[in-house]
Amino acid sequence: MPLLVVGSIALDSVETPSQRRENVLGGSAVYFSYAASYFCGVRVVGVVGEDFPPEHSALLAGRGIDTSGLHVVPGAKTFRWSGKYLPNMNDRETLEVHLNVFEHFDPVLPEAYRRCRYLFLANGSPGVQLKVLNQVVKPALVVADTMDLWIHTQRDELMALLKRLDGLVLNDSEARLLTGDENLVRAGRAVQRMGPKFVVIKKGEHGAMFFSDHQTFVLPAYPTPEVVDPTGAGDSFAGGMMGHLAQQDRFDAHTLKEALAYGSVVASFNVEDFSLDRMKQIGKPQIDARMAEYRQMLSF
Amino acid sequence: MPLLVVGSIALDSVETPSQRRENVLGGSAVYFSYAASYFCGVRVVGVVGEDFPPEHSALLAGRGIDTSGLHVVPGAKTFRWSGKYLPNMNDRETLEVHLNVFEHFDPVLPEAYRRCRYLFLANGSPGVQLKVLNQVVKPALVVADTMDLWIHTQRDELMALLKRLDGLVLNDSEARLLTGDENLVRAGRAVQRMGPKFVVIKKGEHGAMFFSDHQTFVLPAYPTPEVVDPTGAGDSFAGGMMGHLAQQDRFDAHTLKEALAYGSVVASFNVEDFSLDRMKQIGKPQIDARMAEYRQMLSF
Repeated sequence: MPLLVVGSIALDSVETPSQRRENVLGGSAVYFSYAASYFCGVRVVGVVGEDFPPEHSALLAGRGIDTSGLHVVPGAKTFRWSGKYLPNMNDRETLEVHLNVFEHFDPVLPEAYRRCRYLFLANGSPGVQLKVLNQVVKPALVVADTMDLWIHTQRDELMALLKRLDGLVLNDSEARLLTGDENLVRAGRAVQRMGPKFVVIKKGEHGAMFFSDHQTFVLPAYPTPEVVDPTGAGDSFAGGMMGHLAQQDRFDAHTLKEALAYGSVVASFNVEDFSLDRMKQIGKPQIDARMAEYRQMLSF
Repeated sequence: MPLLVVGSIALDSVETPSQRRENVLGGSAVYFSYAASYFCGVRVVGVVGEDFPPEHSALLAGRGIDTSGLHVVPGAKTFRWSGKYLPNMNDRETLEVHLNVFEHFDPVLPEAYRRCRYLFLANGSPGVQLKVLNQVVKPALVVADTMDLWIHTQRDELMALLKRLDGLVLNDSEARLLTGDENLVRAGRAVQRMGPKFVVIKKGEHGAMFFSDHQTFVLPAYPTPEVVDPTGAGDSFAGGMMGHLAQQDRFDAHTLKEALAYGSVVASFNVEDFSLDRMKQIGKPQIDARMAEYRQMLSF
């Protein structure tokens, strides 16, 4: 089943304790769609400026991602983000954000996209996420991501969005901020009571937690010794997760857990180099081999 | 197989964001031995002052723990620690430490203890840990814990100890400190190259990592919504782990992984109340029930 993702497309400048990269391909929709492309057909909706290098679109298209929903604004610039990772490689500070074309992102879905069964609303304002959701006809599964900025500035819109979601993906500090509860088990359950049928709390290098009416579980991150750049880990996690669900075209408890495991495995590849550099080197067989290892690691 | 533990016995004063307790039973050997007592016979060697309430010794004895190696120093005071947890309940600051009798702790093992097959050297100076190790005749498995203080002040003794251990248990910040590597996978492997056949890195609420020549794995913590007091979590984790190994009387790869899982489960009970208050309420059936849930949680 094809999977539709709407989100940001960016040019990132990233500094880690040992290296830096300027204007590399990034953005939530990019990391998500590339990760998901190993599992199912992906359609991406986003906006870029005239400065967006055509080889980046070609890279996505090269993995079969449908980029016809990628809107180029003439005479404008692509969203740019720059950040710096602390030595622990888990915490980072944002150095600069230039929203550029993303500031007025008002996605209109191509007619063919409106009947998608699987929809991921990558990070963006809840107002925009709701507008996208209103254009979709009877989706089977809608999952969204959010961030601290929207929890602070658009809480009402976010609460309205939550009531219409099947799933929400957010990180640990966001879950604490949204609920005011430091304990992540209680926080996850509290977010779930706000509307979504299930909630996934991403804990970076510490894995992910899952909450639904029927189950609570935690999966650790796959332990990779090569953490070069964590940018996009959460989005590639969500891409692997949603990709597996769309591929299986079901989302029962068992498939959801397997999907989170695939998300962890795909994210562990993503962090092994800057931008999509590591992902470009792998195919589904590498993902499946690491998935088998991960499954084995957790069985006793 | 009986399990011998040598370590601290303390009276702790603990402050959490919502509660505080004064002079409650604590110490590494106490948390360890209580946790291990659900699995196998336990012998504890430690030192206390005349102020140590007899009901505390009775509590340990009540679970079948052999306290004949518990040395009371007349006219002296028991080791006291006080600390305060930050709102995240994972980080804490030590407010006061009075080593008292623990400062000159020079354990002499009763003759009957010297042929123990399973030995845990709970937190103490590496010099003292080595002296204990020298009193033991042909143990099957020796595992030790350490802490930042000894990494800073007794590095040579610690390195000498590491070469003689089967296993080392330490927390994430200690592993980073000992190796200078921020990546825990690389840090774990580097600690293992210092001598121990296996290394366990405890990550508090984020679980534990295991490293040996043959395997690397991570297990998450059991997700409990009730974290009242994390004091002793690492020691009860080690107690559950070593208790299972001693009970099974083997330490092959499979049993070691199962042992870490039991450690995680036992630690999750320990944090649900102050001191041993939660542990006092449970028996092996509760541990096994949560273990079954934990195993199920990690299978997909």
